[in-house]
Amino acid sequence: MAPVQKTLAKNRKEHSLPSGAPGSSSLRMQLLDAVNRHICSSSRLSETVEQIVQTTQTALRAEASSVLLLDDSGSHLSFHVAEGAKASRLKHVTVGLDSGIAGWVATHKEPAIVNNVRADSRFTGEVDKSIGFVTRSVMCVPLVVHSSSIGVLEVLNKRDGSGFTEQDLECLEAVAATAAIAIENTRLQQKVEQGYKATMRSLAAAIDAKDPYTRGHSQRVVDYSVLAAVALGLSHNEVDVIEQAAILHDVGKIGIDDRILSKPDRLTTEERLIVQEHPIIGAAIVADIPFLADARELLIHHHERLDGSGYPHRLAGDDIPLGARILAVADAFDTMVTDRPYRSALPVEQAVAELRRCSGSQFDERVVEAFLGGLQTRATV
Amino acid sequence: MAPVQKTLAKNRKEHSLPSGAPGSSSLRMQLLDAVNRHICSSSRLSETVEQIVQTTQTALRAEASSVLLLDDSGSHLSFHVAEGAKASRLKHVTVGLDSGIAGWVATHKEPAIVNNVRADSRFTGEVDKSIGFVTRSVMCVPLVVHSSSIGVLEVLNKRDGSGFTEQDLECLEAVAATAAIAIENTRLQQKVEQGYKATMRSLAAAIDAKDPYTRGHSQRVVDYSVLAAVALGLSHNEVDVIEQAAILHDVGKIGIDDRILSKPDRLTTEERLIVQEHPIIGAAIVADIPFLADARELLIHHHERLDGSGYPHRLAGDDIPLGARILAVADAFDTMVTDRPYRSALPVEQAVAELRRCSGSQFDERVVEAFLGGLQTRATV
Repeated sequence: MAPVQKTLAKNRKEHSLPSGAPGSSSLRMQLLDAVNRHICSSSRLSETVEQIVQTTQTALRAEASSVLLLDDSGSHLSFHVAEGAKASRLKHVTVGLDSGIAGWVATHKEPAIVNNVRADSRFTGEVDKSIGFVTRSVMCVPLVVHSSSIGVLEVLNKRDGSGFTEQDLECLEAVAATAAIAIENTRLQQKVEQGYKATMRSLAAAIDAKDPYTRGHSQRVVDYSVLAAVALGLSHNEVDVIEQAAILHDVGKIGIDDRILSKPDRLTTEERLIVQEHPIIGAAIVADIPFLADARELLIHHHERLDGSGYPHRLAGDDIPLGARILAVADAFDTMVTDRPYRSALPVEQAVAELRRCSGSQFDERVVEAFLGGLQTRATV
Repeated sequence: MAPVQKTLAKNRKEHSLPSGAPGSSSLRMQLLDAVNRHICSSSRLSETVEQIVQTTQTALRAEASSVLLLDDSGSHLSFHVAEGAKASRLKHVTVGLDSGIAGWVATHKEPAIVNNVRADSRFTGEVDKSIGFVTRSVMCVPLVVHSSSIGVLEVLNKRDGSGFTEQDLECLEAVAATAAIAIENTRLQQKVEQGYKATMRSLAAAIDAKDPYTRGHSQRVVDYSVLAAVALGLSHNEVDVIEQAAILHDVGKIGIDDRILSKPDRLTTEERLIVQEHPIIGAAIVADIPFLADARELLIHHHERLDGSGYPHRLAGDDIPLGARILAVADAFDTMVTDRPYRSALPVEQAVAELRRCSGSQFDERVVEAFLGGLQTRATV
């Protein structure tokens, strides 16, 4: 490390909670430093917002503070974070955008300092009544992202009984700019995750529409695959990918003619080759979905066999991804123990014996033992 | 507006570009104010980052400044924004994470002030060589989100020939915290949009897997629907929703047995009732996808008829969403002018005559005229 680095690293430790000289520009810098540190260090942004609110309340010597956010309809503000006495009672409180100081600030996208709420016509006292708090003074600033108001940040009652100043307001506005973007960030992150889940549900619904049997089957293959994956000690992330692949492993059957899929007789060679296209078709269906890239690799190979006699790529041994080897065992087991158009279900003991018989040729031995061990543990619990 | 509001509104205008007293705490406050204002007011966050970089360079009296971001592989940094002489040449320049001052800062998540780059072993001069710039001094800070480094923000060459100070660094670090979260925000927003597109492509691929005819049909229905929607003067957003609904209008056919869909003979009453379930099945497939909520309403009703004799809900007149009335015309037209399993394509003139004949009973007259007008305009262009 170059000499200047040591000094810098040392200096950085000093940025912690502001000591609180209200209204001074040094306070403001310290407050912003603290806020910025929270943003850099916390891995969950909802926690960041809580920390921002708490830090601000302490620095501005207020009795209470809160963040209210506009709901989806855009007509109400609801408490997102609240600190101070009675804060816990605010959880389910909402206020109309057309009433109160918070509503005014959110609507007008202008800040407000009200040091005697009784003398301000915008103050309704409704929230006070509902939670048993007495507001004397309010300083409230809008949270603005992309020129739109998403809510407000407010502090209540200066601890020493004096009023909030314009210097306090400058502090609060600077914090609000950062808080707004942190909140927007959390929302976007949730939107990305909701998008993932929605896509999965939609594809599962498409499988279900094609063939309700396949859907029930997919759910059981998820169950068996996760059982084996956990027994093999795979990581949380690996288990997630296997779960996604298991839900979608037969999505490619959407592309296989119903006359073949539900044929009660033995398939011709030509028909069997058509059915064997389903992993490739499935991979094509999910090809453009970035978050399914890893699951797609397992989905393509869930009909490979350890000895290289499977399809579509005739992979053998460790060339088959472990997750795909797990899916193969789970898929085969569920197929054996349920009725199919061309035969009745096998008893569980017989299916277990069949897995063991094909262990080392069709199936990975470690996977078979992990799965059967997991199955037995569950049965005896 | 309460009296205090007027003062506040007036004060807020004063937060603009910092006047530039380097290293002073007032400079830092002004710089942060300017940065925060950019974030609140710009509707595109990529622009925000450009403005942040520009503002920072001016305030810190540097000759050049840039933001370098880690690429997806996490092994290289590439120039995202650059200001100053030669900046335009940096567009396609990338640097390895294992070399240079920027690489060191991104890897170690520690800032660096290097006031004589020739004396620093981390400096390689590679970028200078490739663009014809001469770096004398560098101040570089990491961009950190959720405890991970996403890149660096750097300023080069103090204009007056002096070096960067630790006070300058405090400024740059405060700006970096805000810039990092603004950049993360832009990325998340792109991820949400990519997720939308990926979901659409995946469902389109599922339709294609079921029946390649349907896919081609869906694309043409998009084309015809957009033609009619634009001719009717609908908004950009309304046209987008109609386009989504058009792509997906037959997704429910995934749930209809191939034996019925490709039957060359007339369908029995029972078979016809099964086919008529496809709008409901389609709506079920997209039900959990929030961004398709509006398109779903059109998809359900694309087989309603103006006189109330359609399906599934026998809606009539204006009770049928306008977008669904548009889909109905586009769908019927394409079905008539293409070969189907049960009959050959009609000539275009005959299909046009049929639309006109059923105008006012099956189809909305305004929609038919708008569509035919659009079709004619296109043919004569």
